[in-house]
Amino acid sequence: MAFDFKVNGKAAHSGSKAMTGIDNIGGLTGKIDRQTAVAGNGLLDRRVLLGRAAASAGILGTGVGLSATTAGAEQVTEAPWGLVPGNPVPPYQLPSKFAKNVVRTLANPNFEPRTSQSRTPHHLLDGTITPNGLHFTIVHGGVPDIDPDAHRLAIHGLVKRPLIFSLETLLRYPMTTRVAFVECGGNSAPLFSPQAIRADVQALHGLASCAEWTGVKLSTLLDETGIDPKATWFMAEGADPPHLSRSVPLGKALDDAIIALYQNGEPLMPGNGFPIRLLLPGYEGNMNVKYLRRIKLLDQPEMSFYESKVYTAPLPSGKAYRFYFINEVKSFITNPSPGRPLQEPGLYEISGIAYSGKGRISKVMVSADGGLSWAEAALQQPVLSMAFTRFRMAWRWSGGTAVLQSRAWDEDGNAQPTRAQFVAARGELPSVPSVLGFANHHFNAIVSWAVDAKGEVRHVYA
Amino acid sequence: MAFDFKVNGKAAHSGSKAMTGIDNIGGLTGKIDRQTAVAGNGLLDRRVLLGRAAASAGILGTGVGLSATTAGAEQVTEAPWGLVPGNPVPPYQLPSKFAKNVVRTLANPNFEPRTSQSRTPHHLLDGTITPNGLHFTIVHGGVPDIDPDAHRLAIHGLVKRPLIFSLETLLRYPMTTRVAFVECGGNSAPLFSPQAIRADVQALHGLASCAEWTGVKLSTLLDETGIDPKATWFMAEGADPPHLSRSVPLGKALDDAIIALYQNGEPLMPGNGFPIRLLLPGYEGNMNVKYLRRIKLLDQPEMSFYESKVYTAPLPSGKAYRFYFINEVKSFITNPSPGRPLQEPGLYEISGIAYSGKGRISKVMVSADGGLSWAEAALQQPVLSMAFTRFRMAWRWSGGTAVLQSRAWDEDGNAQPTRAQFVAARGELPSVPSVLGFANHHFNAIVSWAVDAKGEVRHVYA
Repeated sequence: MAFDFKVNGKAAHSGSKAMTGIDNIGGLTGKIDRQTAVAGNGLLDRRVLLGRAAASAGILGTGVGLSATTAGAEQVTEAPWGLVPGNPVPPYQLPSKFAKNVVRTLANPNFEPRTSQSRTPHHLLDGTITPNGLHFTIVHGGVPDIDPDAHRLAIHGLVKRPLIFSLETLLRYPMTTRVAFVECGGNSAPLFSPQAIRADVQALHGLASCAEWTGVKLSTLLDETGIDPKATWFMAEGADPPHLSRSVPLGKALDDAIIALYQNGEPLMPGNGFPIRLLLPGYEGNMNVKYLRRIKLLDQPEMSFYESKVYTAPLPSGKAYRFYFINEVKSFITNPSPGRPLQEPGLYEISGIAYSGKGRISKVMVSADGGLSWAEAALQQPVLSMAFTRFRMAWRWSGGTAVLQSRAWDEDGNAQPTRAQFVAARGELPSVPSVLGFANHHFNAIVSWAVDAKGEVRHVYA
Repeated sequence: MAFDFKVNGKAAHSGSKAMTGIDNIGGLTGKIDRQTAVAGNGLLDRRVLLGRAAASAGILGTGVGLSATTAGAEQVTEAPWGLVPGNPVPPYQLPSKFAKNVVRTLANPNFEPRTSQSRTPHHLLDGTITPNGLHFTIVHGGVPDIDPDAHRLAIHGLVKRPLIFSLETLLRYPMTTRVAFVECGGNSAPLFSPQAIRADVQALHGLASCAEWTGVKLSTLLDETGIDPKATWFMAEGADPPHLSRSVPLGKALDDAIIALYQNGEPLMPGNGFPIRLLLPGYEGNMNVKYLRRIKLLDQPEMSFYESKVYTAPLPSGKAYRFYFINEVKSFITNPSPGRPLQEPGLYEISGIAYSGKGRISKVMVSADGGLSWAEAALQQPVLSMAFTRFRMAWRWSGGTAVLQSRAWDEDGNAQPTRAQFVAARGELPSVPSVLGFANHHFNAIVSWAVDAKGEVRHVYA
């Protein structure tokens, strides 16, 4: 049985008899519920998650429901991998064969001549960093095989001195490092459907990831070229075959735009722009131009294919947003979620991801009763601006039905909208084609997971 | 030419004629030096690194020395990868073939029946996170191929209720996430040699890495088992063939010890303990027992092979430290460093890593003249406790000789010692065998890189 972090009771109990597992950790007493309940349907005080202080007070320490104990480790049967030499150490580590399900799903597995999306398996991950092997990617003409020694970045247009930079030159400039999420504007597009689509968090929200990026501030390079006072925008263009290009307000270049060379410490992954990409923290993924080869300063937006045809969000009125750059405050629960069912009544942790293109997450509320009552989740520290924030909430599942929701706020004062609020403003679509051109973008409303009496979890509108 | 981040002038200028690269970014005028010099031999004010504010004041903006400009991007020759479809997207991303040198070096490449070390290539990385493919590993009997569904963790000994946990059970407990470095006690052991060994930063300091770890607090599990008041230590044992075991003071279990299940978001790498490892932030790597299968609470240390024979640090007096848990405050420069030479006089960034097992890094000073004068480096934010902190310093290399050093302080008030101070306290060794048993440990003194007039960088004692 592969390591897929799904709860599959029988397989997990297939060890030797002396290695009997613990059947459940739940079954907390009604007394504990009364002490710690903070909202309906089993949500428990977030101090339950904070370890010693709460635990030593007996909240977890009672251990009610732990049904198995060991007869002494001396009786433990030796596992087969303890009896034979292990495997050699490779120069580049890869995941265990037992983690073979912890991979990205491919929207274009046969590599037909169209866009290829790969989605991050959020339901199988935890923490806030997306490992480089699993960062989502979208490419419109395949992944280009760029020789970094021959690659160049030109900065021209409304500058005083147009310049071309080799990678070697870029590597000599002062670097900066920051954690930032990148999210495709089309992430969560299936949520525009009038009916809730039965899919897991990877299929619904897998086009967002978060990494530590290191590179040269674009403002540093613009100090080298100088800026013509007439410049108000810049166009960024990739060296990929479609030469994807987007227009960006010049202010973003001077604020926090980075020419990124490293992703979680190592050179960028080929699917994420190797050898260099533009990083625009908080702006939709498509604008974070990969394989960056050209920055041209302009006195107006370029109105490229991707911004005029693809990334203009249609509105119920029949008009469209001309520009929609920022990925607004958003959250979703990754565990439990479709594909991570509950096994039996008892204590669980509700855990998920929140982020905002407008700054830090200030608060995440969680509901287990479809929004009737809410309680505040614990936020994993440090909470960084425009980065994934992991939230956690203790929950006692009674064995009945539940509807799990999360709702995030950011330091800019923005609240994640309900689905009704969102649809009123942005509309629905009868179908969501997977190819470019029609999908709506920037869905950030509250998402609902329904839990049934068997512990199965499915996506619903509630 | 592979993507190895070495400065190799000819190769980097091999593009088409119209794509002429910038030959240098340096050659800052004497005027600028007088404005910004903060210590001898070219160290510049750290505000030079902080972007807009300093840059717009003209410090970088003068661009003196930039010798090439583009004749207009319209004349740029199309690169071959812009003319053909790219490669398919794989389920799990791997580095570019042009980054083939960005790998770990193996101390036991033929996988002989002895310990296998693999070292992180710090001179080719930037930022603070070590990507999972490049995290250092040490295994004493190969990498075990553990089926997570059959793996168990037993907690027994001086507990009230001995318990066995399956992975499925562990996954239901409240999780916590933190960034932490892990460093082998034997990292930097070649620095015990009386003569400076000619080696790069990967060979000298590659047995330290830093990742975001997620798992269950050990204190949470001990709340489930209860603790016999007589318990003062615990023994942690791995499921690897040698069943590596170490003793840890019980206080660490109740403080910040984590049963880690995720590394940078995904399940642990096989070389880093898949499916579970003990994480003891700040404690020498060997104690962060991988493939964790057993925790036994004791009323005294176990005095296992690894702690009584291998990890007792010998002293000049002939005695030895019985225990030496904490990796103390330390820093080293990764760029420039051996293998990353300088190309021509001009502006460079001196960049490196600092960390302490006793808390946050509070300050890093850098010298370019072998310790005669020092200036404070910029610390990349956020600075996290017991995690890699990236420091950066602007430097104008005159083309003469230089000796680069870094020195770190932590919030606990500890200063990284000079080599002379360190040797007086800890001694030297005539040779440093690569196999277990004789290497000394916990070297944390100041390290020196000598730059010659050609820009070559080598390890020296200074």
